[in-house]
Amino acid sequence: MRNRRVVIVGAGFGGLQAAQSLANSGADVLLIDRHNYHTFVPLLYQVATGQIEPEYIAYPIRTILRRSLFKYHKPQVQFLMAEVEHIDFSGQVVKTANAAINYDFLVLATGSRTQFWGVNGAEESAFSMRSLEEAVALRNQIFDCFEQAIQEADADRRQKLLTFTIVGGGATGVELAGALVEMVRGCLRRDYPTIDSKEVRIILVQSGDRLLVELPKKLGIYTHKKLRQLGVEVYLQTRVSQVTDGFVHLDNEEIIPSQTVIWTAGLEANLPGVSEELAVAHKGKIVVHPTLQVLEHPNVYAVGDLAYVEQNGKSLSGVAPEALQQGVAVARNIRLQMRGKSPKPFNYFNKGRLAIIGCYAGVGKIGALAFTGFLAWLMWLGVHLVYLPGYRSRLLVLLTWLHTYLSSDRHVRLILSSKRTNVQNSQTDLHYLQESR
Amino acid sequence: MRNRRVVIVGAGFGGLQAAQSLANSGADVLLIDRHNYHTFVPLLYQVATGQIEPEYIAYPIRTILRRSLFKYHKPQVQFLMAEVEHIDFSGQVVKTANAAINYDFLVLATGSRTQFWGVNGAEESAFSMRSLEEAVALRNQIFDCFEQAIQEADADRRQKLLTFTIVGGGATGVELAGALVEMVRGCLRRDYPTIDSKEVRIILVQSGDRLLVELPKKLGIYTHKKLRQLGVEVYLQTRVSQVTDGFVHLDNEEIIPSQTVIWTAGLEANLPGVSEELAVAHKGKIVVHPTLQVLEHPNVYAVGDLAYVEQNGKSLSGVAPEALQQGVAVARNIRLQMRGKSPKPFNYFNKGRLAIIGCYAGVGKIGALAFTGFLAWLMWLGVHLVYLPGYRSRLLVLLTWLHTYLSSDRHVRLILSSKRTNVQNSQTDLHYLQESR
Repeated sequence: MRNRRVVIVGAGFGGLQAAQSLANSGADVLLIDRHNYHTFVPLLYQVATGQIEPEYIAYPIRTILRRSLFKYHKPQVQFLMAEVEHIDFSGQVVKTANAAINYDFLVLATGSRTQFWGVNGAEESAFSMRSLEEAVALRNQIFDCFEQAIQEADADRRQKLLTFTIVGGGATGVELAGALVEMVRGCLRRDYPTIDSKEVRIILVQSGDRLLVELPKKLGIYTHKKLRQLGVEVYLQTRVSQVTDGFVHLDNEEIIPSQTVIWTAGLEANLPGVSEELAVAHKGKIVVHPTLQVLEHPNVYAVGDLAYVEQNGKSLSGVAPEALQQGVAVARNIRLQMRGKSPKPFNYFNKGRLAIIGCYAGVGKIGALAFTGFLAWLMWLGVHLVYLPGYRSRLLVLLTWLHTYLSSDRHVRLILSSKRTNVQNSQTDLHYLQESR
Repeated sequence: MRNRRVVIVGAGFGGLQAAQSLANSGADVLLIDRHNYHTFVPLLYQVATGQIEPEYIAYPIRTILRRSLFKYHKPQVQFLMAEVEHIDFSGQVVKTANAAINYDFLVLATGSRTQFWGVNGAEESAFSMRSLEEAVALRNQIFDCFEQAIQEADADRRQKLLTFTIVGGGATGVELAGALVEMVRGCLRRDYPTIDSKEVRIILVQSGDRLLVELPKKLGIYTHKKLRQLGVEVYLQTRVSQVTDGFVHLDNEEIIPSQTVIWTAGLEANLPGVSEELAVAHKGKIVVHPTLQVLEHPNVYAVGDLAYVEQNGKSLSGVAPEALQQGVAVARNIRLQMRGKSPKPFNYFNKGRLAIIGCYAGVGKIGALAFTGFLAWLMWLGVHLVYLPGYRSRLLVLLTWLHTYLSSDRHVRLILSSKRTNVQNSQTDLHYLQESR
């Protein structure tokens, strides 16, 4: 009898964990991803703000799957770098550009993409931060704006270059705002002595009435207060109605000149083309049984941001530990099915939630205990360090953090592309470069 | 009396050194570069082969120019990130897209670019390795070829994907060939168990009758022998007549199917637009007086790859130590001119030459002593470590090297862009993925 084949689409937290948990299951496991690396998404904001090297949070998938230095000729799980173009559920075939792959079991783990809610110009003009490429593009933009600003004699255009607007007051928006403050207070003050740190505007726009809605109310209030203290302009109960090149239009009629707009206001499920519609919940998420099987096919599972999973009548919120635990559960259920047994319901064990604000402040909730400040900040860093794949990345990120906080410097400030904003004050002498002399 | 202004165009080894040597000279120094970082070019080949992170060899120029943590409000040298579009020697003006900058003294240090010698298709189809972006693009290509190859059922197309042709047998070509061998013997064997290392062809094409023509003959012969032992196919006295998509045409009528062609066969001077022609020597290099002043203007200097400098009747060869020493000499000469004195001739002090082959072998010449093997390999690494800017880069590169050689692994294997070769065996099942089971 041939081995059963499990195909896993997507090597994010859920898919990768499912693949690892299926090693030695007796099944032929094939993990497919469009990239050859796994991205540690929670630290993307540190890449975007020049704190750590992109390579530290992107780990080659083949290295992760290699279980031991001495077993390399017998990989437990195969990997294929390809874009999945179509899935045929009745034929049980996954199609890529180059191949059609049959499966006995399928795990869908293709995650989410930025949701722009139909806001005019947002998709075209705003930066998002869902992939390594996007984080690097944002880093290029941020540092380029400072380089442009010191060459800009016109006060309005200079202010626009120095205004950074973050749309969305969830964990990503808060982290990014805090990291930008740290950057302005640290290396920028040293590197651009002609820019007064008060000139730099960091704006956080949130549609709800508080920040971090997933966390208890008092943590959102603390975060708001802390960010205001740090100089971030926080707009609550405000929506963005339009983004044009260099301007953010708010629904209160205000128009903010801002060269850089970063969109962190929502995600939607990111499913490849399929042969038949699956039942979906809000944000296009696939409805699954408590066992994580899709409603229509007992041999197809969905995990992570792609799946709509309820627990105690509430939908899960889309954080990495949920996806990781779902990956383990799916592997267990596929093993049960292969032995002719029934899959078991998934049960999320919530170890707690942490969010980092920056400048030595964070917030957290473990069980009934909510806490704020330095301890939460330190715990956030510690937890993320532990979850990073590979001891090498862990060591390098730790060294980089220590160095960053001791020197308040940023090392990765490279502007690699040159999609440059066109500043128009040609032929003026650079007198403003010399103000500090 | 206002300060004299020195404008330096280009922040490579020569320009950056000139800027640093002019700090505290009493002049207003402005360093201009199109990038905001200095690239440590000698290690680009390690970026291209996934050995080190690109960020380790690209150092923010503002950080280098900052002399001390506590003097940050008084920078010694200003920096401007801009592309120089035109230089008007009679008006003494450097023009960028945004500004016109007057100078009293000008240092031209814009380096070199790849020279394709008019070979058909080379510029369009071959990779070169002169900048960080190019090195990262080459890394993407190399690892993408392996990912594509394991998905390719057609034997010819698979062989083409696994063939890497390096054109040019100078130091860069030799280094790259050696690094590719190390890669194939190390991580690739583990990560792609279905690829036999004998399937991977590494070809080095050299027009001259030996490798490393800048070094004594016996070192070139040793290098040739060593590379052949390592499995590199070395073609001597062979020229490339054409590069087409996926094929290298040699002047001996041979056509090699090779998806990746890397062009390291020559450089030419890279001067921005100027108001009048300057006297040039071969490869477009600017002819300078022994003082490094250009023939036409006593207040304009040229250094590094841009300048044609003779010593003892022989032209200098374009290595980093020459540019560094020229940077120091130019700074000294400008100081002399500012005090009304005559500039002095430049005299290159040759500390020796080293080239790395890889796999624990290198070659070197110090004074009359020529040596080969492990010692030269170790010295090469040591010297380059010492010359890297910044103790942080030094530490990280050292750690990475130690780890790489202990584990023979490559950590930076990210394929960041997706300019993918189109493989055409659609709809086949991936049976070839499973050969090793």
